[in-house]
Amino acid sequence: MKSNLPPLGPKADKDTVRRSNLSLVLRAVRDESEGEATRAGVAARVGLTRAAVSSLVEQLLDSGFLTESGKTFSGQAGRPGTALKTARTGPAGLGVEVNIDYVSVCVVDLAGTGRVRLTEHLDNRGAPPAEVLARAARIAARTLESAREQELFPVGVTLALPGLVSGGAVRQAPNLGWNQVPAQELFAASLGAERPGHKALKVTSENEANLAALAELWFGGLERVRSFLYLTGEIGVGGALVINGELLRGAHGFAGEIGHVVVDPEGPQCRCGSRGCLEQYAGQAALLRAAGIEETGSGIGVAELERRARAGDERAVAAVAGAGRMLGRVLSGAVNLLDPDAVVLGGVYRNLMPWLSPPIDQELTDRVVSGLWSPGSGRLRASSVAGDAARGAAALVMTEVLADPVAYAGRTAAR
Amino acid sequence: MKSNLPPLGPKADKDTVRRSNLSLVLRAVRDESEGEATRAGVAARVGLTRAAVSSLVEQLLDSGFLTESGKTFSGQAGRPGTALKTARTGPAGLGVEVNIDYVSVCVVDLAGTGRVRLTEHLDNRGAPPAEVLARAARIAARTLESAREQELFPVGVTLALPGLVSGGAVRQAPNLGWNQVPAQELFAASLGAERPGHKALKVTSENEANLAALAELWFGGLERVRSFLYLTGEIGVGGALVINGELLRGAHGFAGEIGHVVVDPEGPQCRCGSRGCLEQYAGQAALLRAAGIEETGSGIGVAELERRARAGDERAVAAVAGAGRMLGRVLSGAVNLLDPDAVVLGGVYRNLMPWLSPPIDQELTDRVVSGLWSPGSGRLRASSVAGDAARGAAALVMTEVLADPVAYAGRTAAR
Repeated sequence: MKSNLPPLGPKADKDTVRRSNLSLVLRAVRDESEGEATRAGVAARVGLTRAAVSSLVEQLLDSGFLTESGKTFSGQAGRPGTALKTARTGPAGLGVEVNIDYVSVCVVDLAGTGRVRLTEHLDNRGAPPAEVLARAARIAARTLESAREQELFPVGVTLALPGLVSGGAVRQAPNLGWNQVPAQELFAASLGAERPGHKALKVTSENEANLAALAELWFGGLERVRSFLYLTGEIGVGGALVINGELLRGAHGFAGEIGHVVVDPEGPQCRCGSRGCLEQYAGQAALLRAAGIEETGSGIGVAELERRARAGDERAVAAVAGAGRMLGRVLSGAVNLLDPDAVVLGGVYRNLMPWLSPPIDQELTDRVVSGLWSPGSGRLRASSVAGDAARGAAALVMTEVLADPVAYAGRTAAR
Repeated sequence: MKSNLPPLGPKADKDTVRRSNLSLVLRAVRDESEGEATRAGVAARVGLTRAAVSSLVEQLLDSGFLTESGKTFSGQAGRPGTALKTARTGPAGLGVEVNIDYVSVCVVDLAGTGRVRLTEHLDNRGAPPAEVLARAARIAARTLESAREQELFPVGVTLALPGLVSGGAVRQAPNLGWNQVPAQELFAASLGAERPGHKALKVTSENEANLAALAELWFGGLERVRSFLYLTGEIGVGGALVINGELLRGAHGFAGEIGHVVVDPEGPQCRCGSRGCLEQYAGQAALLRAAGIEETGSGIGVAELERRARAGDERAVAAVAGAGRMLGRVLSGAVNLLDPDAVVLGGVYRNLMPWLSPPIDQELTDRVVSGLWSPGSGRLRASSVAGDAARGAAALVMTEVLADPVAYAGRTAAR
């Protein structure tokens, strides 16, 4: 019988404990960003003494992670406290989403708030990967200039990439036509060339649907939903699984490929090599084709589809409903397999929900064995933002800063 | 942005640390059960000093969790050590599997070794749930008598039940015809009535496929496979997901229902209420029907199917191959979604692998987008034991003892 309990962690020394507690206090303040954080409130929340919290707060103020504003009257007895906030300057995260028909770059601050955004719509299918990534690096470099003007200094970059991403490379992105592209390395070299004399930023990479799901988890107002299946309708159909508040990446990083679950084994040939994948019925191209709308690669087609559906155009409505049935069929299987709290639809699906959700609900009601997925259950929902992988990517960088602020103390504006 | 890092745990005091370390040492000895554990070897493995380990070992010997045998010469310099083993008497785990056509009860010792087994083949579909559970309690009571003769004293029971299990109840087990059956309560009452004057055993319950998957994880020789999809072919088709060495139970405990993933939306009516579920193509009844074998409900039909397939009977071979194609189709979707290390087939599938695996491999090769599932990859495998949910259930009880032996010190034979 193999050990199935985690071993004891390393011995905690005083320095480690203080660094952990600094992280705890910083995160507690950030989580209160919509209200007002006070030393007393933080102490109550994290379970440390008021004196300990005060000392930790002083260090975080000194090193520029926190700022302090005027008195706050919480309505409780005792002296008024001052309101604490995470700094709007200093260490930041950079997220760069390279997708089929756009590049979007985002800078977030300690609170995860998007502070700079630069998006370029362009068709990346025609160009060699190195060129696409060099263009993304140019857009990133421009974004960094804007960030610098706001005294925000990214400590790292996460690339959000479509397809199978692992070890810094895109192993396969059928819709881009990429195979074994060392994206991280190419991007890092290009960004370095764009910014001579600057310190190189650490670059990591991740599947774009995974990052969009993280953005949804962190910023989507999901309340108590901690396990969900996320689908993003783009040129491809991306997917991600969040289980107990964490990404399920799979043994090789390739989990979530719901777009390539087979719907009809004899269906149309898919770019992945298989036949009858969900993407062939519910991807953007299939949707537009079924509605009789020419695909332009610039997102105009989808807006037109929505306009026609809203106007009651029968062909448009039938196209979306047909995609919904296929989505519902695959989703019912995924729900039987995973029993998530919710299914969240992003990307182009978000605005098509009025016509997508009835057939999806029908399939879920008929086919989910637990019986928990009736239309009124609220378990099927539209994403709160249109699959914002770039913000998720930028915020992922910040999790490292929040986990150990001391390691990044030199990077704040206060120094 | 919600906190996505775990808060600091409670402060560790001296007593807590010692209890943790007792668990650590006990588990280290158990994990060495195939070799010989020495104090020095355990110290090296768990990262404590030799003196600390000696003191912990003394306590575990005194309270009857460990036994010590003759000198061992490890081939290394220094004094010979004595070989430590987990006790073969004392606290034990009881597992009771109630399935469609059998009840199987198992007692395991600290090492997880099956020490007593009592199985009765019978058709549970005809009888009311309370009667089935009373019968299971009688079988369990008999097993406890045998265990007592071996000086094994179960500290708890886990029920392994088919269908949707949560909160101690079977919400739905279509193949048994059970709906909202408070199985845990019924079983506990019956077991109490069977054993007047005995202390009541704590009863928990879990889906049988989940427990069979745990048995496979702990005892199946899976080596470095930590994430896998487990399928068990019975009257129904059960499934379970193990991710990073842990069960993925789902938001409501209903994950793993791969038998109800839809294969053909217009297919035959399933007992779950949906149509064309995998179970309708790859369950035991479908297999036997396709092969032209009468189902007897006693496992004889499946043995006959295997015999005919081995003899080259075309109809039998075609029946298994057809089920394999459907299994492969559903599995390719599940693999695209979850990216596991392996897929493990248990139950009746185990002995049918020679005819099942070629069509499954073909589907996986054609349809898994990562390209990692070629026939030579070794990722598709038969379970090592025929889906032993009863042993998994019994071993699950023992994880509590292993996690905090001090809490169970009064129950050992040494006292």
